[in-house]
Amino acid sequence: MSLLNSGSRFLYDQVFDLVVGQIRAGSLQPGDRLPSLRRMSSQLKVSVATVMQGYVSLEQEGFIDAKPQSGYYVRLDSHDHTELPNPTTPQSIARDVRLEGLSQQMMALARSNLAVPLALANLAAELLPGKALCRILHRVANRDSARVLDYMDCQGDAELRRQIAYRASKQGVLVDPEQIIITNGATEALALSLRSLTKLGDTVAVESPAYFSLLQLIEEFGLKAVEIPSHPRDGLDVDQFEKVIKRLNVKALVCISNFNNPYGSLMPDKAKQRLVELANARDVRIIEDDIYGDLHFGTHRPRPISSFDQSGNVVTCSSFSKTLAPGFRVGWLIADRGRAEMLSRKYTVSIANSSITQMAVIEFLANGGYDRHLRNLRRRLQIHVMRMRNELAKTFPTGTRISEPQGGFVLWVELPGNVDVNKILERSLAQGISFLPGSLFTATGKYQNCMRISCGNSWTSEIQAGISRLAKTVLGCC
Amino acid sequence: MSLLNSGSRFLYDQVFDLVVGQIRAGSLQPGDRLPSLRRMSSQLKVSVATVMQGYVSLEQEGFIDAKPQSGYYVRLDSHDHTELPNPTTPQSIARDVRLEGLSQQMMALARSNLAVPLALANLAAELLPGKALCRILHRVANRDSARVLDYMDCQGDAELRRQIAYRASKQGVLVDPEQIIITNGATEALALSLRSLTKLGDTVAVESPAYFSLLQLIEEFGLKAVEIPSHPRDGLDVDQFEKVIKRLNVKALVCISNFNNPYGSLMPDKAKQRLVELANARDVRIIEDDIYGDLHFGTHRPRPISSFDQSGNVVTCSSFSKTLAPGFRVGWLIADRGRAEMLSRKYTVSIANSSITQMAVIEFLANGGYDRHLRNLRRRLQIHVMRMRNELAKTFPTGTRISEPQGGFVLWVELPGNVDVNKILERSLAQGISFLPGSLFTATGKYQNCMRISCGNSWTSEIQAGISRLAKTVLGCC
Repeated sequence: MSLLNSGSRFLYDQVFDLVVGQIRAGSLQPGDRLPSLRRMSSQLKVSVATVMQGYVSLEQEGFIDAKPQSGYYVRLDSHDHTELPNPTTPQSIARDVRLEGLSQQMMALARSNLAVPLALANLAAELLPGKALCRILHRVANRDSARVLDYMDCQGDAELRRQIAYRASKQGVLVDPEQIIITNGATEALALSLRSLTKLGDTVAVESPAYFSLLQLIEEFGLKAVEIPSHPRDGLDVDQFEKVIKRLNVKALVCISNFNNPYGSLMPDKAKQRLVELANARDVRIIEDDIYGDLHFGTHRPRPISSFDQSGNVVTCSSFSKTLAPGFRVGWLIADRGRAEMLSRKYTVSIANSSITQMAVIEFLANGGYDRHLRNLRRRLQIHVMRMRNELAKTFPTGTRISEPQGGFVLWVELPGNVDVNKILERSLAQGISFLPGSLFTATGKYQNCMRISCGNSWTSEIQAGISRLAKTVLGCC
Repeated sequence: MSLLNSGSRFLYDQVFDLVVGQIRAGSLQPGDRLPSLRRMSSQLKVSVATVMQGYVSLEQEGFIDAKPQSGYYVRLDSHDHTELPNPTTPQSIARDVRLEGLSQQMMALARSNLAVPLALANLAAELLPGKALCRILHRVANRDSARVLDYMDCQGDAELRRQIAYRASKQGVLVDPEQIIITNGATEALALSLRSLTKLGDTVAVESPAYFSLLQLIEEFGLKAVEIPSHPRDGLDVDQFEKVIKRLNVKALVCISNFNNPYGSLMPDKAKQRLVELANARDVRIIEDDIYGDLHFGTHRPRPISSFDQSGNVVTCSSFSKTLAPGFRVGWLIADRGRAEMLSRKYTVSIANSSITQMAVIEFLANGGYDRHLRNLRRRLQIHVMRMRNELAKTFPTGTRISEPQGGFVLWVELPGNVDVNKILERSLAQGISFLPGSLFTATGKYQNCMRISCGNSWTSEIQAGISRLAKTVLGCC
């Protein structure tokens, strides 16, 4: 009975997913009639009741309208018409970064037990394969307790590196497992790369807005940041990047080209290719954070920047923290030039990573569990992100612009006018609702009217009610 | 049957341990007659055969002699007469540290699969509570899989910090759990402390010889090291330390006062007290690595330096890597002044530690397993260290000096004459025997005639044969 239920829920979501996908792809246009219940039922080989459930849900979410005696139609006033945020235009000068109190603020948010937590880019427990991983932890511990207790190789388990190399090969990157270093999450990967490829006082280019952890690392290592104009759909403005590296002595670029956090952008392949050519010509090192790449909503995983580079100039950092288990602290970097120094530094500051979590990830990758989980997770996140975007579009003031990411699970929201988002945050925290203010994602002092909203939670009535309350607070401050 | 065997071996070790303890404490003097087999058997409530086994083993190890028709006597030419290494007399000037290739060398040693590995200060699997910990890992994963997968608080689990604070209180240190930060082993604790309490170019005092990881961190952060003369029994020469801090602007002292690695020394309480007073008077910060403190052979755990400080000047770093499970990567620091910066830095470079290993350690501490394990481990390590020292004393050239640590599990061996230990290392590695050359433990270029020998393995005939081979190589090079 419970199996049947979960089965039929899965299929109802599939109906939802299919129709929304067609609407987004444009094969179903506003005003188009949907296939009849009976036809859809025979096409998908599911019951008419299941299709019905899916259509009702699509109607509730505002994607379609039911016309009595006629059928279901794609809604004309789809919230997909909400505009994207404006491309950013930071002044591209080399600046010191000062993020006083940011770590404390983030740690406090992580500790807070809010009813509607939309601040941190964490996945809710129900989206993660807790039971499967814990079964594997048990097996691994039983099988080789001596290995679980012992130091792991500083570079990380060889089989884990082999599997990561194999996955990279499917993304068009030929990687020798020797080029991989397992790290304490992607953050340590970024820290080791940035520290090893730069010297005190060097200038590092970042997208604008930039992931706050990148800015923190730039501050930690005494570097300067130059923020590059970026586009909410296509990411880093490569023309602007070219101008900047001609004008300034830029040592490295650190960027998130696949489903940027916080901007949601995805750099087209051509832009990635040109970026690599420009960087190589001027000896600017590229460090990419590809942590969201596996969370694509489209059929194909976007390529990492490194797949366009033959020269060993690009370091790719990633982890399983956004897809599997942040508490495992299993991340990695893939590097060619400069790798020996990164590994030596890893040994110096932390010797090795936890053993058991690496051993468990190996098994989850090997038995196909990870890929199965990813397929399901991507589908669910796409729905969460779309529902959140629709809800924000419905409830937030006219003129609000919202990113439309094709992967990942954060939204960048640009409010109209001169509203101060920090004031909104203060009030919404008092109501048990969190988000991140845009000002955290720049050293320029800009983006005071922007916010980052995480869609890492399941969509619930609490979340929906929270968005309504948040919208009221926003309206009150505009 | 196998239970019985392991039981009787345990008791035979106890007999060995007891007699050796009495010899070392002086209650049994060279030439003294040991209790008869029958008397010992009834005192210890073990069989006569077990006592016999213990006595034979004592004889084999050179502690006692059997006199026919008379009994067993403490040997007159006990190897306890082997002298301690000479106190060190480094030139105490501030130097840059250059340890090129050291990390690579250590990683290669860790990867090598040698028959007689005496290089790394790791405990062999049979000395660690693998089964008990893996049972706990299973329980923990079953009980709260969501927590296992999720990010842990950056500062570390609150209950774990509470338990560490409780253990510190038993060592005479009043610690608020808020003062504790859980780290990726003691190495990350040392890295965070040193980085946060110093600035580029600052001078840091260390004992001489100094643990190579401390020297690596000093190099990593662009600091200068000043090495302080030290004594093989009493550790850091506090008079010399006083002179140095009057002469040089020393920002911090990093030291291992309890069972120094590699020197084996233990600072007396009075010296610790005076050290704290001197450091506080001149605002020299103290960072202590207390990782070996729990491995005392005597009845009392030595006090950490911090127990003599009321001013918040001392940071204590430690971990469970030398007592429980290095692969868990559970270390910590206890700090007062400067703690906020350390925590913020931890967030910046690694966000958090692995969750499941923290959760497992909590349970092992709470159920008393850790203390039971420690009692057993201390006893076994004492025997390993004594046997190794005896064996080295018996087989190495006359004039060899060997440390006599009262805890921990490394020996510092000073060879007579101008022998070059690196040549010995090269030859012994080819024979499957490793150790660390003394030159790794200084930036002065000294200690070329010294070696560090780890006693973290069970005493086996392979190890004993390895020592004989090593001794031959040493003799060949002297």
